Amino acid sequence: MKTLNVDLDERSYPIYIGSDLLSQRVLFDAHIRAKQVCIVTNETLADSYAKQVAATLSDYQLTTVVLPDGEAFKTLDTLQRIFDQLLEQRHNRTTTLIAIGGGVVGDMTGFAAACYQRGVDFIQVPTTLLSQVDSSVGGKTGVNHPAGKNMIGAFYQPQAVAIDLTVLTTLPARELSAGLAEVIKYGLIWDHEFFEWLEENMEALRQCNLTLMEYAIQQSCAIKAQVVAADEREGGLRAILNLGHTFGHAIETHQGYGAWLHGEAVGTGMVVAAELSAVRGYISSTFVARIRKLMAAAGLPIHIPSAMTNEEFLQLMAVDKKVLDGRLRLILNVDHGKSAIFDDITEESVKVALDRCRKEI
Amino acid sequence: MKTLNVDLDERSYPIYIGSDLLSQRVLFDAHIRAKQVCIVTNETLADSYAKQVAATLSDYQLTTVVLPDGEAFKTLDTLQRIFDQLLEQRHNRTTTLIAIGGGVVGDMTGFAAACYQRGVDFIQVPTTLLSQVDSSVGGKTGVNHPAGKNMIGAFYQPQAVAIDLTVLTTLPARELSAGLAEVIKYGLIWDHEFFEWLEENMEALRQCNLTLMEYAIQQSCAIKAQVVAADEREGGLRAILNLGHTFGHAIETHQGYGAWLHGEAVGTGMVVAAELSAVRGYISSTFVARIRKLMAAAGLPIHIPSAMTNEEFLQLMAVDKKVLDGRLRLILNVDHGKSAIFDDITEESVKVALDRCRKEI
Repeated sequence: MKTLNVDLDERSYPIYIGSDLLSQRVLFDAHIRAKQVCIVTNETLADSYAKQVAATLSDYQLTTVVLPDGEAFKTLDTLQRIFDQLLEQRHNRTTTLIAIGGGVVGDMTGFAAACYQRGVDFIQVPTTLLSQVDSSVGGKTGVNHPAGKNMIGAFYQPQAVAIDLTVLTTLPARELSAGLAEVIKYGLIWDHEFFEWLEENMEALRQCNLTLMEYAIQQSCAIKAQVVAADEREGGLRAILNLGHTFGHAIETHQGYGAWLHGEAVGTGMVVAAELSAVRGYISSTFVARIRKLMAAAGLPIHIPSAMTNEEFLQLMAVDKKVLDGRLRLILNVDHGKSAIFDDITEESVKVALDRCRKEI
Repeated sequence: MKTLNVDLDERSYPIYIGSDLLSQRVLFDAHIRAKQVCIVTNETLADSYAKQVAATLSDYQLTTVVLPDGEAFKTLDTLQRIFDQLLEQRHNRTTTLIAIGGGVVGDMTGFAAACYQRGVDFIQVPTTLLSQVDSSVGGKTGVNHPAGKNMIGAFYQPQAVAIDLTVLTTLPARELSAGLAEVIKYGLIWDHEFFEWLEENMEALRQCNLTLMEYAIQQSCAIKAQVVAADEREGGLRAILNLGHTFGHAIETHQGYGAWLHGEAVGTGMVVAAELSAVRGYISSTFVARIRKLMAAAGLPIHIPSAMTNEEFLQLMAVDKKVLDGRLRLILNVDHGKSAIFDDITEESVKVALDRCRKEI
């Protein structure tokens, strides 16, 4: 097992990465404050991983909340279900919530922990590659609003994150690909050597080679932890983690939450961002082609939805959180392994980039 | 105008206390970050104070959200209305929310600000005596759950608080009394001289003498600011601000939110707490009698609801946030101007105290 530390002063916490962590009681014990524990999971995992953790923690006063599965249920209404059960079972301020699931369960459980009695402890047990390398690190929690993703939420750090590699062996291929999109992102924004390592090892990663997977996750979490430690509340640097996300969110909102997986939308969004970087002359068309090739090798879509117009894109992007005072702010590649924030982007250049990402008919 | 500072490092903020603050644009300008402002108020104040502030800030890009009036509407559903309008009007991360109203509006607006896009700025303009001396200082925000008050919320500090004394002149007498309950609380937990000053000046305060009122508010806010600065997240000391509240919340929940005003319930709760302190021998029955007399002089109820049994009290108190691991924790008077937290309180002694607070038939 590897341990990585997210360094945030008194809000610092460890990320454990290894096999068969779900049954290692000592890992959990170290981060549970008192007697009460509330496992939050979804319908798909209730009988497998959630049950396994419940068995590990059977000595605690245990409540399990089972949420419907999917991004469409990441709402204030679903959140209320967690509060209902916590109160019904009389959980007090010393309780610990444990999120067992992907990003949706993790984001909602974290936000529930942030708000329940104005803040209780929580532990993340991410069970998808995407949530392991992304949402479980950094403390962004929240729910969606019909008008936009993650519009309601909090910055709230967990007590610990337990990343169990074993769960990846049963993950559907499509979800593995979605997770790889965020892994590729770290290569693009921070570490070109890692990008090249991914070019070499993408096939084995898609076959879920756990040794390579452990390295990929560790690198991803380490980069994210470094960025988050430098800028916890997204005042500046942290925004680079949103590479591809503004485009991706527009796709998700347009298609309806859940039609595209988040990772798929972000993957395509990164291709658009790369094209836009090329339009502005920051990176070469050769590098854009490598990015497209790696995304495709990861099993990700590289074209925007054919039914989506440029106007629809621009309109949906205008409500994104990254927009400040009406000015479009976007993260773009500026070199191999480097990215930066720009707020002087014209709608025209966005349209050119979008057109380059349409499937030729 | 007097200015008081709440000292919380980078979350420090000023409290302005004076007459006719609502039209002093410079006060607001200093704390509004960008162009967007969202006024949150209730139906009762929409055409008066909220309009006045809107006129003061007419140059900003202004949205006004009008919530239904009353504790019964302090829910996640009502909160959603604020988010709906913020998103509809495309408010971004640099927006500033301004709460104009009593504790309900203030708590909900603060919580909305804490959660909208994971945190935006807000300013408190409390328009009841109770919210001026209590909820506007200290950063407790949140909404109720059918199973208990303020069960969902956040610690989140405003950019500034503007306490306009003029609004008190139109406050109904019953609400003025409710506010005086919290004023008396500060005398009980922290400052016996202030308690004695209140004994002398209660009649003039009830007639809303603004010079005396200014002093009472200033003293109250100063004591609260001192306590909150020492313990922002209620690890220990801050709990003394809850004197009377556990009993009060039980009354409010039992009677249905809004039947008793919060300050009325807390006032009666403080009488119960005083009786319990006397049962345990911490204060004399003479002092309890003085407390009862001052509460009555403030126009507050001093008897618990006759229909409420001791068992109902104990059951409702068990879900209160102050309960840790099943043990009842209560704040009690321990001397003139002093209070402390106890977690060794027997149900028997609570019943004795409750019985002393029943109206003789």
